[in-house]
Amino acid sequence: MNILYFIDIVGTMVFAISGALAGRDKKLDLFGIAAVGFITAIGGGTVRDVLLGSTPVGWMNDLIYLIMIGSGVIISMFFNRAVLKLRRTFFMFDTVGIAVFTVLGLQKALTLGVHPAIAIMMGMVSAVFGGVIRDIVCNEIPLIFRQEIYALTCIAGGIVYVSLDSFGIGQVLNVAITSVFIVLFRVLAVKYQWKLPDFS
Amino acid sequence: MNILYFIDIVGTMVFAISGALAGRDKKLDLFGIAAVGFITAIGGGTVRDVLLGSTPVGWMNDLIYLIMIGSGVIISMFFNRAVLKLRRTFFMFDTVGIAVFTVLGLQKALTLGVHPAIAIMMGMVSAVFGGVIRDIVCNEIPLIFRQEIYALTCIAGGIVYVSLDSFGIGQVLNVAITSVFIVLFRVLAVKYQWKLPDFS
Amino acid sequence: MNILYFIDIVGTMVFAISGALAGRDKKLDLFGIAAVGFITAIGGGTVRDVLLGSTPVGWMNDLIYLIMIGSGVIISMFFNRAVLKLRRTFFMFDTVGIAVFTVLGLQKALTLGVHPAIAIMMGMVSAVFGGVIRDIVCNEIPLIFRQEIYALTCIAGGIVYVSLDSFGIGQVLNVAITSVFIVLFRVLAVKYQWKLPDFS
Repeated sequence: MNILYFIDIVGTMVFAISGALAGRDKKLDLFGIAAVGFITAIGGGTVRDVLLGSTPVGWMNDLIYLIMIGSGVIISMFFNRAVLKLRRTFFMFDTVGIAVFTVLGLQKALTLGVHPAIAIMMGMVSAVFGGVIRDIVCNEIPLIFRQEIYALTCIAGGIVYVSLDSFGIGQVLNVAITSVFIVLFRVLAVKYQWKLPDFS
Repeated sequence: MNILYFIDIVGTMVFAISGALAGRDKKLDLFGIAAVGFITAIGGGTVRDVLLGSTPVGWMNDLIYLIMIGSGVIISMFFNRAVLKLRRTFFMFDTVGIAVFTVLGLQKALTLGVHPAIAIMMGMVSAVFGGVIRDIVCNEIPLIFRQEIYALTCIAGGIVYVSLDSFGIGQVLNVAITSVFIVLFRVLAVKYQWKLPDFS
Repeated sequence: MNILYFIDIVGTMVFAISGALAGRDKKLDLFGIAAVGFITAIGGGTVRDVLLGSTPVGWMNDLIYLIMIGSGVIISMFFNRAVLKLRRTFFMFDTVGIAVFTVLGLQKALTLGVHPAIAIMMGMVSAVFGGVIRDIVCNEIPLIFRQEIYALTCIAGGIVYVSLDSFGIGQVLNVAITSVFIVLFRVLAVKYQWKLPDFS
């Protein structure tokens, strides 16, 4: 499915940019920026593959991932504060990226034979764990643990996918529906500031 | 051995509660609390399985773990400060939990054919690494690196198990003796404030 | 190749000392110091092996690593502030250590059949990731992300190795040339304070 592959590698680049910008905020040097960009881009898929035992992990089998990450890091060098204000485009890329990461991660887990509930978790891990590791490396409490409905969006998307799959809907259509669902869910969540209840 | 399985899943729930409470202390949202509870409960066994190459990691093969963790997170919602003072019951659950986690982790490692010294380490890792990851995620230096004899208790228990095993003692009896040893050791260590020398 | 094995285990001890000293700086107890020493010594190789799927991870197959790490931790107990000023010897051990770790990690990755570009990364990961995990555990932003040309030295060395290998140079000679290159590069980088440009 070429469209998914295309979004996957563009999503990888967007995640690398997000990581590299976090590295710049922390005043890291060029290697540190590249490293945080790299970890952010491949962290989620790597954790999924390691937990499932699918090794060597995915990005090692196709150099395009390294190339996209390198490009993302270079692009992040040319961002300046003015450009950073134009977050809207970036947000859309990021949102489409997590939709595709979720679906691809979920499919990979199902292929490896785990229970659908575990596969839904692995879809979510694929999409969000790069950001979790980015925040740990940057010495922050992971952002998604505090204020974003980010991870829940991926879980909801995973439930949609597995449910439609159990009704016998074809894979291509299911991928399309689930991706659109995740994108819409996230856009609405941010627009209307959906929040989880606070029990602290 | 049904009793071990029972304690294992109850221990998993207790660890999830401990993680969820740490997440509440850090003012995380509901997802963050659940995530920290989850990571605390499965972190040790996951690290052990990944290092030993036993994948998909253990909790993926039995949904009861997810269910117990979910229950633990929900239970932690109803804790309030008053209840938190009643730490004694909680402490006993936790102590029995690490005893069982140590023994089960050790046995799994031995089954996979590593040297007994490595198996002892893996027993300890099974019991304590969930807490280590919990502290890293919550942006703290891991507690067990600073003031508890926690990890050493697990190592001592592992040495007892491997020694008795080499004398040909049956597995059931050995598990019972080792578990009682770990529980007693920890209770005494806390009661008499055993401490490691401080070289800092 | 016995000389490589010898440097590998001495390097392991040097890394354990470096980790244990970091643990002392953080006022950890004896277990914490040993744990940080251990993680620093085996972290890089462990991450490499887990990503490549070469499990049980390397240090589990040869108890000499545990013994060297234990020795390193004990040695670090006898360091005092005066001794710490004599960093030059320590620096040379560390530098030879990363050279050997890089070459051994790179070779292992090539043996497992990944692309040379990935193998170069894995050589670098073998050499530097123990220090990255040490810093994360000690609640610091990893040092190599901020001010050292450390990781780039390993990548440069990896490129040298893979290039010479593609010209058909024998393995023994290649190991020798690459190791000397890495050591020289690092000594010069520190002496002349080579730095990466700062984009923050």
